[in-house]
Amino acid sequence: MKISSVTLHPIAIADPPLRSSYGLHAPFALRTIVEIKSDDGITGFSETYGGDGPLGALEAMKPRLLGMNPFRLAGLFQSLTGSSSDVPGGHSQTWLVPGENPLDLHTRTFAAIEIACLDLIGKAVNQPVCEVIGGRVRDEVCFSAYLFYKHGGGGGIGSDKYDDEYGEVLDPAATVREARQMIKQYGFREIKLKGGVLEPSLEIESIRQLRQAFGEYVPLRIDPNCAWSMDTSVEVGRALQHELSHGGYLEDPCAGLDGMAEARRRLTSDGIHTPFASNVAVTSFPDVVQAAKYDSVQIVLSDPHYWGGMRQLQFLSHLCGTLGMGLSMHSNSHLGISLMAMTHVAAACPNLTYACDTHYPWQSARDEVVEGGRIKFHNGAVAIPDKPGLGISIDWDQLARGRERYEKIPYRKRDDQAEMRQHVDPNWKRVLPRW
Amino acid sequence: MKISSVTLHPIAIADPPLRSSYGLHAPFALRTIVEIKSDDGITGFSETYGGDGPLGALEAMKPRLLGMNPFRLAGLFQSLTGSSSDVPGGHSQTWLVPGENPLDLHTRTFAAIEIACLDLIGKAVNQPVCEVIGGRVRDEVCFSAYLFYKHGGGGGIGSDKYDDEYGEVLDPAATVREARQMIKQYGFREIKLKGGVLEPSLEIESIRQLRQAFGEYVPLRIDPNCAWSMDTSVEVGRALQHELSHGGYLEDPCAGLDGMAEARRRLTSDGIHTPFASNVAVTSFPDVVQAAKYDSVQIVLSDPHYWGGMRQLQFLSHLCGTLGMGLSMHSNSHLGISLMAMTHVAAACPNLTYACDTHYPWQSARDEVVEGGRIKFHNGAVAIPDKPGLGISIDWDQLARGRERYEKIPYRKRDDQAEMRQHVDPNWKRVLPRW
Repeated sequence: MKISSVTLHPIAIADPPLRSSYGLHAPFALRTIVEIKSDDGITGFSETYGGDGPLGALEAMKPRLLGMNPFRLAGLFQSLTGSSSDVPGGHSQTWLVPGENPLDLHTRTFAAIEIACLDLIGKAVNQPVCEVIGGRVRDEVCFSAYLFYKHGGGGGIGSDKYDDEYGEVLDPAATVREARQMIKQYGFREIKLKGGVLEPSLEIESIRQLRQAFGEYVPLRIDPNCAWSMDTSVEVGRALQHELSHGGYLEDPCAGLDGMAEARRRLTSDGIHTPFASNVAVTSFPDVVQAAKYDSVQIVLSDPHYWGGMRQLQFLSHLCGTLGMGLSMHSNSHLGISLMAMTHVAAACPNLTYACDTHYPWQSARDEVVEGGRIKFHNGAVAIPDKPGLGISIDWDQLARGRERYEKIPYRKRDDQAEMRQHVDPNWKRVLPRW
Repeated sequence: MKISSVTLHPIAIADPPLRSSYGLHAPFALRTIVEIKSDDGITGFSETYGGDGPLGALEAMKPRLLGMNPFRLAGLFQSLTGSSSDVPGGHSQTWLVPGENPLDLHTRTFAAIEIACLDLIGKAVNQPVCEVIGGRVRDEVCFSAYLFYKHGGGGGIGSDKYDDEYGEVLDPAATVREARQMIKQYGFREIKLKGGVLEPSLEIESIRQLRQAFGEYVPLRIDPNCAWSMDTSVEVGRALQHELSHGGYLEDPCAGLDGMAEARRRLTSDGIHTPFASNVAVTSFPDVVQAAKYDSVQIVLSDPHYWGGMRQLQFLSHLCGTLGMGLSMHSNSHLGISLMAMTHVAAACPNLTYACDTHYPWQSARDEVVEGGRIKFHNGAVAIPDKPGLGISIDWDQLARGRERYEKIPYRKRDDQAEMRQHVDPNWKRVLPRW
């Protein structure tokens, strides 16, 4: 079996004005749909970061992919990433978001190819992707309600302005309303709040009100993307010691493994054992080892899109298990192809200890490119479909609309700081720590 | 696809009177050939430890395997080994050889099933097994000349007494002769000597004469299977500091990770950086972490047969790479099915830093069950065949002869100490450290 064609579909999807410590989401998120066809007429798909950078990197791979056996993925990974070992901090996301981070160029480019090849292989052998990569250990994968502070207004612009499902969410009461609405629709059983946006006291209050609203047995997490100083991290950890217990965690409160190690030491010396999670400071295998050594982080937020695909994620899951660390999954704005890739790999990772993140509720049915429309959640979980590959097929009309949308808009990279300056504060810039 | 039948073929193969610190090899080594058939008529094979224990453990698995999707391996592994973490030393081989070690019961039982399923899957999808598990990173795998001290006489007994290809090898000069003969036949480019048999001064002399005979650029290793005290380990390390450089290593000189850590410290403080390898003290993932933490061992000798199969070996390879450790491969007396399984998984492990061990030269063409006879080596390497699965098929007449041989002999477990007592010294027992 050989790869006979590679087609890249750059698309844009409406994205509401969500906030994080990186800034503000633009009215459109950019994605690339990868279509890989084999000489026996089978087609595999994946979804990855969009815009000029990711698209160009994939485009440049075409000559190497044409004629390649889609099973021979490890050799391609090795030739892309080199045999040299990474160093701790080598893929850091402290300043750059995934997809726009030159440090994860090779792993994210490979991941998009690998996942499309695995979809293709699954169809060729008539097995779901989770079986192709070693076999499922669960039939469904749980996701969290991923709450964001946001401005009023839906995604999109002009004639492509979308309805605002959730309204403005910039205080604790609105956060609870957003959670109720999202949980009612999707059945999520765990809650994560993207923080680093309001004054820490208001974010503490948001978490407290969420706990009052949903009771003490719904796990709660908060992720300020390292917006806090070490002192503030310790203060928030102290203030929320009860709220973040029962399966909760504190994610990337401050920057760097050293800072988190010190914040952790200070909290544990107070008898507070809230685990720390990270997808900002822990983005490569050497980071995991460092994080374990210094007890900086106890839970890694994996993501097949930038860790190098599904098999690298299985290595990560195994490594975390070996080092006694937990595992969850990070996400970015995405459609159903990514959701299914995340679900398949999560189903094949024995060491997955927390519900995964997903931005899926923030996207619109108007933009979904999966045939049959939006992927269904039951009680906050996505089931492995009884179909080969990722279990999805493409709605070609919808894909064409996504491409047209992409052509019409000026956005060609994700720049949350530029959006903040344009729409919220012309002088805004990312400052670490902000509080 | 479902498993429709599981057939176990217990066989015996002649084995010469090889010595190690565990004792003496019996005239026959016991193996089990596993045959797994799917409901679409495809058959996969693997080879594993033989005798009552391994056979019984596999027999007990049959009800769970019948009707199982052969792709769903991770779930089976999880249900066998449990989700609880292992502890360091939990699979130790200090006293028990693989196959007779109750501590690795589950991982070795699973491995035999996994490898047969992967052979089956490879045939179903028309790909070599190395591609099924992620893709090759090399087209051939290098093995070492695995030298043993031995008594005169070939394997087998009575009418089944085999020719003695190598004669008695119980001194340095004979060791060099054995090496020349084996290298001439197989083309090996690296040399490993099983030690722990003669006085350390004679084993040191054997290594020195090997170096004189083959020059300083042929990597040399010695493995006394922890027969030495810490002091002796340090003395040998000092005596052989030049001989074991250039890709050499000192394998399991003394028992336990603590002992090796101390021996290593004493050698490095003398400026001697000969790496330590282990398959005795490092037999589980927690051992690897401990070994790295205390710098006890720098090279892990993996083995799919007892580490839990090919995918666990890939995890091990990745873990060693992440922790900056090297990887090679351990072996036991085996035929061509095992050799091809070792070759396929080694081809799919990017972090494989030393030639692999193999006992293959010690077995006879008379016993090979692979159709077409013995697997060919070129310059000490085995190539991935251009065939699906493991790339071998079964010579059913030869397999039947192996089963008949098994039925005729009294041996039902490996017991190297009993053989020593019967043939060499009635009072022999394994003592650690012996020197």
